[in-house]
Amino acid sequence: MKNLGRHLLVEFYGCDFSLLDNVTKLRGILTHAVIAAGTEVVDIVSHHFSPQGSVVVIIIEESHLVISTWPEHGYAAIDIFTCGEGTNPEKALDFLIDNLKPTKTTIMEIRRGIFTSKNS
Amino acid sequence: MKNLGRHLLVEFYGCDFSLLDNVTKLRGILTHAVIAAGTEVVDIVSHHFSPQGSVVVIIIEESHLVISTWPEHGYAAIDIFTCGEGTNPEKALDFLIDNLKPTKTTIMEIRRGIFTSKNS
Repeated sequence: MKNLGRHLLVEFYGCDFSLLDNVTKLRGILTHAVIAAGTEVVDIVSHHFSPQGSVVVIIIEESHLVISTWPEHGYAAIDIFTCGEGTNPEKALDFLIDNLKPTKTTIMEIRRGIFTSKNS
Repeated sequence: MKNLGRHLLVEFYGCDFSLLDNVTKLRGILTHAVIAAGTEVVDIVSHHFSPQGSVVVIIIEESHLVISTWPEHGYAAIDIFTCGEGTNPEKALDFLIDNLKPTKTTIMEIRRGIFTSKNS
């Protein structure tokens, strides 16, 4: 079996309210996470919700990173979707842990686009 | 237990090459999927990769939709992440199936940001 993409679904709990609610800071942290992973930002889009909450999406050459935050719960949902051998999503994740400082983290990896000799 | 978000991870196989490689059409289809789900587009960003492949991301008030395509495999990875009761992600998915016409679809739902009385 081969798969086209790797998708890390990450939950951060216990993060600081003001950091999760600061779109400008989150854009910077996600951009540096992309660089840490060994790839480049193709495009970035973000939004701050009312009364709180942020989303930042970065398109990279090897797919995308997304962070969605609920500052009132200290919670962030992070998706790191990569393909190809040139990108190291674990390094992006390590960078995010170092900078968002969750007190609890859960990580799940889903292999996306699985083909076998029977369905490819 | 309560969860903050619903995340549908969807795989489409057997889609038409030219449709999966057409960013303009994909932007239109995703926009209409968002409307079908009962919500609105906050922002949209997209990119066409060389030699083929597309990604379209839409930020909605209730989080985001992403489609990443590998036209050469007839494959698209779709993520529909919603929160709140006002949005119906199944309707977005139905719209995408009707318009991208996969010959095979797999769907997984992950509850994101789960809290119990012990961790909230």
